[in-house]
Amino acid sequence: MLVVKKFGGTSVGNPDRIQSVALRCAQDYKAGKEVVVVLSAMGKVTDELIALAGKVNENPSKREMDMLLSTGEQTSVALLAMALDAIGIPAISLNAYQVPMLTTSDYGNAKLRRIDTGRIRRELESRKVVIITGFQGLNKLDDITTLGRGGSDTTAVALAASLHADVCEIFTDVDGVYTADPRLVPNAKKLLEISYDEMLELASLGAQVLHNRSVELAKKYGVEVIVRSGILNTEGTLVKEEANVENMMVSGVAADLNTAKITVTGLKDEPGSAFRLFDLLANNSINVDAILQTGGQHGKHEIAFIVARNFTKKVIALIEENKTKLKIESVESDETVAKISVVGAGIQSNPGMAARMFEALYNAGINILMIATSEIRITVIIKEVDMEKAVRTVHDALVD
Amino acid sequence: MLVVKKFGGTSVGNPDRIQSVALRCAQDYKAGKEVVVVLSAMGKVTDELIALAGKVNENPSKREMDMLLSTGEQTSVALLAMALDAIGIPAISLNAYQVPMLTTSDYGNAKLRRIDTGRIRRELESRKVVIITGFQGLNKLDDITTLGRGGSDTTAVALAASLHADVCEIFTDVDGVYTADPRLVPNAKKLLEISYDEMLELASLGAQVLHNRSVELAKKYGVEVIVRSGILNTEGTLVKEEANVENMMVSGVAADLNTAKITVTGLKDEPGSAFRLFDLLANNSINVDAILQTGGQHGKHEIAFIVARNFTKKVIALIEENKTKLKIESVESDETVAKISVVGAGIQSNPGMAARMFEALYNAGINILMIATSEIRITVIIKEVDMEKAVRTVHDALVD
Repeated sequence: MLVVKKFGGTSVGNPDRIQSVALRCAQDYKAGKEVVVVLSAMGKVTDELIALAGKVNENPSKREMDMLLSTGEQTSVALLAMALDAIGIPAISLNAYQVPMLTTSDYGNAKLRRIDTGRIRRELESRKVVIITGFQGLNKLDDITTLGRGGSDTTAVALAASLHADVCEIFTDVDGVYTADPRLVPNAKKLLEISYDEMLELASLGAQVLHNRSVELAKKYGVEVIVRSGILNTEGTLVKEEANVENMMVSGVAADLNTAKITVTGLKDEPGSAFRLFDLLANNSINVDAILQTGGQHGKHEIAFIVARNFTKKVIALIEENKTKLKIESVESDETVAKISVVGAGIQSNPGMAARMFEALYNAGINILMIATSEIRITVIIKEVDMEKAVRTVHDALVD
Repeated sequence: MLVVKKFGGTSVGNPDRIQSVALRCAQDYKAGKEVVVVLSAMGKVTDELIALAGKVNENPSKREMDMLLSTGEQTSVALLAMALDAIGIPAISLNAYQVPMLTTSDYGNAKLRRIDTGRIRRELESRKVVIITGFQGLNKLDDITTLGRGGSDTTAVALAASLHADVCEIFTDVDGVYTADPRLVPNAKKLLEISYDEMLELASLGAQVLHNRSVELAKKYGVEVIVRSGILNTEGTLVKEEANVENMMVSGVAADLNTAKITVTGLKDEPGSAFRLFDLLANNSINVDAILQTGGQHGKHEIAFIVARNFTKKVIALIEENKTKLKIESVESDETVAKISVVGAGIQSNPGMAARMFEALYNAGINILMIATSEIRITVIIKEVDMEKAVRTVHDALVD
């Protein structure tokens, strides 16, 4: 049995925590399992390195940033190897060069292309715990790249896929996937299982338990992922193809403040006008959600849609620049909105679900600005000030 | 013109210092030179990493230690590349993998075997300042090795040799090589030039300006090395084959407290008895200096010799274990002694030099316990308490 275990920054935040992680790995090792461990940088190390870089260059090059940041994981893997050695468990740490772990060229946001598992296999065969730097890779120039924030999850899932691991355990700050953020909804329940698709919806909707790309990868290669606490020894949530959600139609309610409403007015009423607008955004890698088109006077339309708040400036600039080509009059943004979504495999077969959600919000006096749905989710855009109340209301109505 | 510039830990100790180093490199770059920079880890980073390792394992494996420590230089090279970029100088940082910089296998104390200069050349040709991690290499397993303390000097000299650099500048805490430690001898003079051989004697005698191995390498490949201050902009000392010491017969007086006297008594008076003793020590890589043999009673001898103080325990244990084979009665150590040496190319041609040194010490009331000489040095062993006085006395008599 081969397990890939990934521990986040908090789980390896200090020498004591690293020793706890060593004990957890030793348990699997002693049970006869082959153990591959993926680590993030210790605690706040990545943030500290970013701050250090800011002191010598306000806008450091991404190549040098990756060179700098990759030292964080290399430090934690070496320390864990030492900690395992101290309790008599043979272990070896490997960085992106030693694996090697090949990626695309984009510094700061590279994608894994290929993992050569030869050395990992050899070290496992000699009965060592193999500890690998998460988050980083190597491009064709032999330069260090990083996979972007949360990239260590992706490293772990990719390794699990390449090594045909039996399971991939992601140890994190939370002890599993909940039906809502427990800080907002005290009676939120931990899910024992969730499907890849539902997890993807939740991840992209701001649940922040697993990095989106890692879930996509897990789905693509059928890697079963367990999300569990890096500190507590509790059962986590299993992410797999077909989840048994115990007759629950809704697996979760997610809230996302990284939401902005863009309104384009005076769009000329002619074929292709909406297409030109969304084509422009798509070509600039901007995801759009919840489109609402309304007819206006004098043969002109108004279109509103939702983008991530950190793209607001870029979207406005892009549309302003192309105003003439797009044949529009003006564009506005509103960053005082939030997104609330219910996610669940049961949604498509229960058309009444949306109605119950809207009714609950109406009864709570919360105004719905926009709506979007997919087979497994219903999203409403509301005012940001209503966010917490909305999550609790929807959770009470659809999950409890 | 190609220059290799090496900056030690103090010179890159914080973001401000790194920006100063960037300005120094920019000066050479703007003058049209090809600039290769070798850096140590920032300030106390290496010591901090060693302390961190000690918290998870009292006796960490050398392989993992090298994996851990090598992050220190990688951090500083990335930061310097960013700092140069911030002032408009194109720069790129390279670690041991990216060069690549190949070494022997011994973790913690590897020796450089080969530097592939292809990538460095290409980056220089595209008019970049190339910044390379000192102190580290790569062994045949693709594992990171380190060259031992002070190894960044060796990296710099080896790079200067491989790249046929015009000069190798070592920026350090001191602003050159002095005729004595200026803290002990206020009127010590800075040397403008010194020969490799003299520098080697001074380095091994505790002058600690340059790492010994780096001077050996410089001598072997004829690399001219300039030692100068990493903080002040003063002229340094040039280390080369034939130094012009301006008619000075003595280039320096060095003191070394890392000195212990070992006394073996009851050594049987028969052929090969001394050979067996020193052969044993040589086979255990222990350097011996200033041997003094005295005849004893009943056909037995006494032999005293000097070793580095950090080897005292090992030497005593080794001799105790082999007492019978060595045919000796007892062994004792004395760690209250110090070594004072005068070094200079003029010594061999001036037989009166030793006499003047001994006379000066006698006049100062300092007792000489043992003596050793080579072509370019005269060493005396004295009591540790006399050390400072002895350095000043000898310096006044022979240098001033």
